[in-house]
Amino acid sequence: MPHIAVDAMGGDSGPSVVVLAIRDLVKGHPDVVFHVVGDSGILQAGLARARLQGSSQIVVHHASQVVAMDEAPSQALRGKRDSSMHVAIGLLRDGHVDAVVSAGNTGALMALGKVFLRTIPGIDRPAIAAFLPTTTGRLLALDLGANVDCHPEHLLQFAVMGSILVERVMGLAQPRVGLLNIGSEDIKGNEQVKEAALLLRAAKLNFIGNVEGSDIYRGVADVVVCDGFVGNVALKTSEGLAWMISQELRASYTHGWYGRMAYLVNRPILQRLRRRLDSRQYNGATLLGLNGIVIKSHGNADRFAFACAVEVAIAEAKHRLTLRIAEVIQKSLDPAVRNSA
Amino acid sequence: MPHIAVDAMGGDSGPSVVVLAIRDLVKGHPDVVFHVVGDSGILQAGLARARLQGSSQIVVHHASQVVAMDEAPSQALRGKRDSSMHVAIGLLRDGHVDAVVSAGNTGALMALGKVFLRTIPGIDRPAIAAFLPTTTGRLLALDLGANVDCHPEHLLQFAVMGSILVERVMGLAQPRVGLLNIGSEDIKGNEQVKEAALLLRAAKLNFIGNVEGSDIYRGVADVVVCDGFVGNVALKTSEGLAWMISQELRASYTHGWYGRMAYLVNRPILQRLRRRLDSRQYNGATLLGLNGIVIKSHGNADRFAFACAVEVAIAEAKHRLTLRIAEVIQKSLDPAVRNSA
Repeated sequence: MPHIAVDAMGGDSGPSVVVLAIRDLVKGHPDVVFHVVGDSGILQAGLARARLQGSSQIVVHHASQVVAMDEAPSQALRGKRDSSMHVAIGLLRDGHVDAVVSAGNTGALMALGKVFLRTIPGIDRPAIAAFLPTTTGRLLALDLGANVDCHPEHLLQFAVMGSILVERVMGLAQPRVGLLNIGSEDIKGNEQVKEAALLLRAAKLNFIGNVEGSDIYRGVADVVVCDGFVGNVALKTSEGLAWMISQELRASYTHGWYGRMAYLVNRPILQRLRRRLDSRQYNGATLLGLNGIVIKSHGNADRFAFACAVEVAIAEAKHRLTLRIAEVIQKSLDPAVRNSA
Repeated sequence: MPHIAVDAMGGDSGPSVVVLAIRDLVKGHPDVVFHVVGDSGILQAGLARARLQGSSQIVVHHASQVVAMDEAPSQALRGKRDSSMHVAIGLLRDGHVDAVVSAGNTGALMALGKVFLRTIPGIDRPAIAAFLPTTTGRLLALDLGANVDCHPEHLLQFAVMGSILVERVMGLAQPRVGLLNIGSEDIKGNEQVKEAALLLRAAKLNFIGNVEGSDIYRGVADVVVCDGFVGNVALKTSEGLAWMISQELRASYTHGWYGRMAYLVNRPILQRLRRRLDSRQYNGATLLGLNGIVIKSHGNADRFAFACAVEVAIAEAKHRLTLRIAEVIQKSLDPAVRNSA
């Protein structure tokens, strides 16, 4: 019976989005208990409006402060010990819940996670991992921005964790792991990537070698690993391009009567396309490597997107992802196993 | 009167594309002489078919060898001294032409350029620079893959060269220069980028600060500077996403009679969109920093795309880009000027 802590005060919309998302989730997940964290007055009122008060699947935890979106992580750590984010992480640390979901300040969430949960033993740096759409389904990409100047060893750790996540949560045996590079040949790439490739090849992974930026969306891999700087640029560039294409498409349709008519005719097609590529369904990045399941939602998530992020938390909690990663890492560090391999 | 050397043997299609591209260009550029380099037998026949033999604007230079698309640059340098690429670069080195255009092997072209042209004094590493579409027009991005593990000083050089290119060739006074980063705050980024920002701020540039991947396409800058690894990943990722979106769009339209009808109605809109975002019009990357104008076309360029690459060469030649960059660099290195600044 998974218990999920939900920071209700984060993101642009705060409690209103969170309460509606939970309402959408309670029916489909009768075995889940949602621990909603934030201003209890606001929350009780919101839950009542949503006809959820008295629900056996909802527990309200009061938190008197909120971490601001632009607040420095150090400030969130020391200055706001009763923020909804802090309380939610505390519930996870103390074992009252199996996962935390927050749409708040990413830096603060990661800082709180590192201090109060620490990392899974054997993992140096948690990565931000999220699913991206491909023409064949989806793939997991990490690190999308938590760490810059990664060492090759970190990339190996990302690969191991990512592989386990995809294997457990998506049920894919031996996920194909690719290393983001600027060409397929081993000779290509910077020093960090060239050394990482050696480590990945030697590890117990289904390592398919280098993957170029253009291959990401072709679905040639199930997991793509990269430095946080590169991953963040790739992600943001994709978002910017998708935005530009939709702007151009929109502009094309407003030209006179033909454009408007064509738009009406085309609308079901565009809606299908929008659904297929809708970023909201991919909302919910895992802070992978923390010793507890922590999911970050986009700040501008609507109820559907936020619910998707909570679904990620539920799935990872059901599959006991953190435990599983810890087991695998422990085994690989065990000298007896290493010597026999 | 610009003289442009065109390597006719590079790329997927070789001479056929090149000859047609030149035919499209001769009328619009009566003051340009095209030095077509390759197998003279094949070229003369092609030119005759295109009714260009005898044209005062065309000179054929024979080259008996061709650099293969997958050939190692070192092999191209030492093993094929009579390749069309080698001969074309030789014409530039010896001052017979003002620029070279090739659709061949990028690594070989860069290697030949570095050995026979060297770099502009004061420039350590030439970068691959190309224009990308934005919602407000276009911007120049570099480095798109020539150099990995750049030093901050290299990024500064890229910024200076890119700024001059945009200023001269696009006629934009004080081009806005942005540094590709993972956030707008100075505190963000890896060591390389943080140090580069200091150098850019101190230089005589219209430096607007950090630019995120998502901002590239919003046209917030006229020049975006980055390490070659990051730039190549960003570019390839964009290409892959654009491809995926067009695949999804295409798939949406083939569903039954409605899809086909909607496609017909929508075709002018899609064509307008395709023209607006057509990558062919952006074909022609400058190997910026070589002591001579060298333009690299995509290997798969058709006649229109190849002509666009030649147009880039013509524009840069007319504006004496290499000389201008050399002047600016020289001035900045001159102690008298530096001390008075």
